[in-house]
Amino acid sequence: MPNLLMMNQLLNEDILAILEDAAMYAKGEGWKAEEKLFIANLFFEPSTRTRFSFEVAEKKLDLQVLNFSADQSSVLKGETLYDTVKTLEAIGANAVVIRHPQDHYFEELLGKINIPIINAGDGCGHHPTQSLLDLLTIKQEFGSFDGLTVSIHGDIRHSRVARSNAEVLSRLGARVLFSGPKEYKDETNPYGEYVDVDEAIVNSDVVMLLRIQHERHMEKNTNVINEYLEQYGLTKEREKMMKDHAIIMHPAPVNRGVEIDTDLVECERSRIFKQMENGVYVRMAVLKRALQKKTQEEKSNVIYS
Amino acid sequence: MPNLLMMNQLLNEDILAILEDAAMYAKGEGWKAEEKLFIANLFFEPSTRTRFSFEVAEKKLDLQVLNFSADQSSVLKGETLYDTVKTLEAIGANAVVIRHPQDHYFEELLGKINIPIINAGDGCGHHPTQSLLDLLTIKQEFGSFDGLTVSIHGDIRHSRVARSNAEVLSRLGARVLFSGPKEYKDETNPYGEYVDVDEAIVNSDVVMLLRIQHERHMEKNTNVINEYLEQYGLTKEREKMMKDHAIIMHPAPVNRGVEIDTDLVECERSRIFKQMENGVYVRMAVLKRALQKKTQEEKSNVIYS
Amino acid sequence: MPNLLMMNQLLNEDILAILEDAAMYAKGEGWKAEEKLFIANLFFEPSTRTRFSFEVAEKKLDLQVLNFSADQSSVLKGETLYDTVKTLEAIGANAVVIRHPQDHYFEELLGKINIPIINAGDGCGHHPTQSLLDLLTIKQEFGSFDGLTVSIHGDIRHSRVARSNAEVLSRLGARVLFSGPKEYKDETNPYGEYVDVDEAIVNSDVVMLLRIQHERHMEKNTNVINEYLEQYGLTKEREKMMKDHAIIMHPAPVNRGVEIDTDLVECERSRIFKQMENGVYVRMAVLKRALQKKTQEEKSNVIYS
Repeated sequence: MPNLLMMNQLLNEDILAILEDAAMYAKGEGWKAEEKLFIANLFFEPSTRTRFSFEVAEKKLDLQVLNFSADQSSVLKGETLYDTVKTLEAIGANAVVIRHPQDHYFEELLGKINIPIINAGDGCGHHPTQSLLDLLTIKQEFGSFDGLTVSIHGDIRHSRVARSNAEVLSRLGARVLFSGPKEYKDETNPYGEYVDVDEAIVNSDVVMLLRIQHERHMEKNTNVINEYLEQYGLTKEREKMMKDHAIIMHPAPVNRGVEIDTDLVECERSRIFKQMENGVYVRMAVLKRALQKKTQEEKSNVIYS
Repeated sequence: MPNLLMMNQLLNEDILAILEDAAMYAKGEGWKAEEKLFIANLFFEPSTRTRFSFEVAEKKLDLQVLNFSADQSSVLKGETLYDTVKTLEAIGANAVVIRHPQDHYFEELLGKINIPIINAGDGCGHHPTQSLLDLLTIKQEFGSFDGLTVSIHGDIRHSRVARSNAEVLSRLGARVLFSGPKEYKDETNPYGEYVDVDEAIVNSDVVMLLRIQHERHMEKNTNVINEYLEQYGLTKEREKMMKDHAIIMHPAPVNRGVEIDTDLVECERSRIFKQMENGVYVRMAVLKRALQKKTQEEKSNVIYS
Repeated sequence: MPNLLMMNQLLNEDILAILEDAAMYAKGEGWKAEEKLFIANLFFEPSTRTRFSFEVAEKKLDLQVLNFSADQSSVLKGETLYDTVKTLEAIGANAVVIRHPQDHYFEELLGKINIPIINAGDGCGHHPTQSLLDLLTIKQEFGSFDGLTVSIHGDIRHSRVARSNAEVLSRLGARVLFSGPKEYKDETNPYGEYVDVDEAIVNSDVVMLLRIQHERHMEKNTNVINEYLEQYGLTKEREKMMKDHAIIMHPAPVNRGVEIDTDLVECERSRIFKQMENGVYVRMAVLKRALQKKTQEEKSNVIYS
C-alpha cells in the first residue's frame, strides 16, 4: 500500500523518484488519471495552503475531489476516524488525504483501510509533503543536497517540519544546524547541532524559518513574541550577513515581523512563495505514486485472480 | 415532476425499476449526463455518508455539483427554504437534493418549484434513498423480497428508516418484525409485529439495526444506553443464533458497542459497508430518474410549444 | 490587469461590452476555457446567490473552482488577506473572486497581486456584478437606458447597490429617483433626486427595491421595520399605481412583507428571479474579460520576453 505517512519511511531513492516526478509536473508533463478516481480530503484542522495545494494538484491530475470538513459531518455524532475513512472507502474514494490534530492518528487505520492514506499533517508529528516541497525547492536551487548547510530556526520542539526535515536532509548529505529559544530545544532530535542565530545565518546555504505556533502551544509569553524577531528571527541586518547565494525558506503562514522582517518575505532570496508553488507539483507526484501503483495492483489482481 | 420525497409515493414497479437501474450502475453501465446539468446539495444537518454518497453519484454521472451548507449562506440572514431553493433554480440548478431537520419540509416547496426535489432525509420522517439502498442490498442477497423475514431493531419511533422500510418491505412481500425498548414503540406504524429480541433474531433473514439517535431525542437515559447492547442489541451470542444465511444491516453511523458488538460490524454476515457502496448506485438511479424525465419533458415542451 | 472592483472604473463602452457578452452567454454561446484555469472564490461573509452564481458561471465556462471559506482556513491563524491571496496565486489560481466585510478591502492588494481580482461585494461599498446584472435586466426589458426613470427605494445610505447603480444609470442616460426613510438618506450621493414614495412609484419604468439590512447596521428600530412596508415599501396598492410596462427589481434576499408585499415577489412585473438568472450570464462575461485578456497578455509576454 503506497501510503505516505512519515518521511522516515521513505528510502532516499523513493524521495528522489518523487522529486523527479514533481519536476516533470513543474514542466507541465507526467501521468494524469484516465479513469474517474476519487480523492477525499479530510481536514480536521483549518488550513489554506495545504488544503488548496492538494485540491489544485488533484484537479490538475483530472482526479475527482471530495472535500470533507469535520464540522459538517457525522464526526459531530461521535463517529470515529476509522469509521469515517472506512465509509469514504465504501462510497468509492480511491485515496484519502488527512490532516488531523492528533499525533500518529493514522496508526488506528493501518492494515484496516484498503486505500492509500496521504498524511497532510498530524499533530506536532509529521507533514511529509511539506518536507518534500522543501526538498524540491532546495534541489531546484542547488542541484543536490550534498555538502549544503541548512539551518532551521525557531520552535524546533513543536514543529512538524523540523524533525522530519532534519532527519531527511542529514541522510541526503546536508549538514543541519538548529537555532532558537532554549525552551524550544528538542533533545530527542539528534539530526542537527544547536548554534547561535548569527552563526547559523552566516554559515547557511538555506535559512529555514519555522512558524511560531501561537495557537498550538499556548505558553503566552508575550515578551518572547515581542522580542522574537530581534533575538531569534531574520532581521534585515542578519539577511545582509547571509552568503551571496543563500536562500530563505518558511513553511508559512508567516507571522510577519516575528520570524522574519516583513520586508524580507518577498525579497530576492526568499523562496517562500516558490515553496507554495512547488507544493502543488510535489503533491501531484505523491498522488501519482499512490494511485498509479494502486491501479497497477488492481490490474494485477484482475489478471491473476 | 419526478420528485423523490417518501417511499409510500412510489409504486412497487417504480421501486423495482430504480433497483434495476442501480444494479446496472453497480456493473459500471447506464445513463450519464451528456449536457452540463447542475445539482445543488442542500444539507441543513451534518452528514457524512449521505452527502458524499450523493456527491460521488453525481460525479459518476458527469453532473455538476453545487454544495450548499446552511452556515455559509443567506439562511443566516433569515432566508426561507423556499426562497433558497427558488434562488438555486433561478441560478441554474437542474435538481436539488435536500436534507432538513424539519418533518415534511418539502411541503412548502411542492407545486412551486420547477425542478425535481430529492429528499435526503427530513426530520424523523423520511429518507427514501436509505430505504432504496436497503432494498438493493436485500435484493442482491436473496433475489426477491417474497417470503423473507426482516426484523428492525431499536428506536422504531424516531427512525427515518423504520417506518418507510416496514411499509415498503410489507408490500413487496416480506414479513416485518419490530424489537426494542418499550419507550421506542411506534403505535402508529402498522407494518410490523413487536416481538422479543431473541425471537426476532432467530427468525430473521435480515437483522436490521437502527441507530440510537442520542442527538435527536435527548432523553439522556444513560442507563438505557449502557445496558442497551445486552438487552436490545446484537451481541456475539445473538449473532450465533442467527440463521445460516441471515445478514446484518445498519444505516450507520454505528454506535459501536451499543446497537451491535464492535467485532460484528465487519463480520462476514455484515452488509453495513456494502450498504454504503450500494447507496451510490441507488442515488445514481434516483438522479437519472429525476433528470432523464426532466430532459424528456423539456424536449417535449420545445416541440409542442 | 482586468480587475473588476468598482463600477465607476468602467467606461460606458466597457459596460456595454460586458452586457453584450452576457447576452451571448444567455443564448448559450461565447468563450469557454480551453486550458485548465483555476478560480478561487473567497467569501468572508455568508452568501447564497452571489457565491453560487459565480460557481455556476465558472463551471459553465469550464473553469476549475476552488471554494475558500474563512472559517476553515489559516485566516483563523491570523493570516492577512494579502498573504491569503498571494498564497492562492502561488498555488495556481488564475483569478480570485472576493467578498469581504471591509470597505475597499482590495486596496491592500492592488499592484501587488498578479492575477485579476473580481469584487463580489465589499462592506457597504461596491458590488459591481450586482450592478451589471441589474443593467442587463433593464436592457433586456427596454433595449436601452436612455430616458428611463429608475427609482431606488430603501436604505440608500448603506446599500452596496444604491450608489453604484445611481452613478452608472445616470451616465447611461437614465433619470434616478431615491425614496425611503429620512435616516437612510445619503447626502454624499449626487446621482438621484429624493422624492416621496408614491411619486417615485408612479413615475418609474423600473422600481428597484433595496434590502433592509438588519444584519449590517444594527439600529434595532423595530417600529420602523414593522411599519416599513406601509410607509416605504411596495404594497399591492402601490403596485397598481405603476406604469403599465414598469418592472420590479430587488437584489435579494428579500425580506418578504418588509420591502415588498410577499404576493408581489413573483408577480408578472417582478424580475427578481430573472435578475438571479442574469447574474450568471453577467459573471460569465466578467470572468471571460478577466481571463481572456490575461491569457492574451501572457501570450504577448512569451513572445516579447
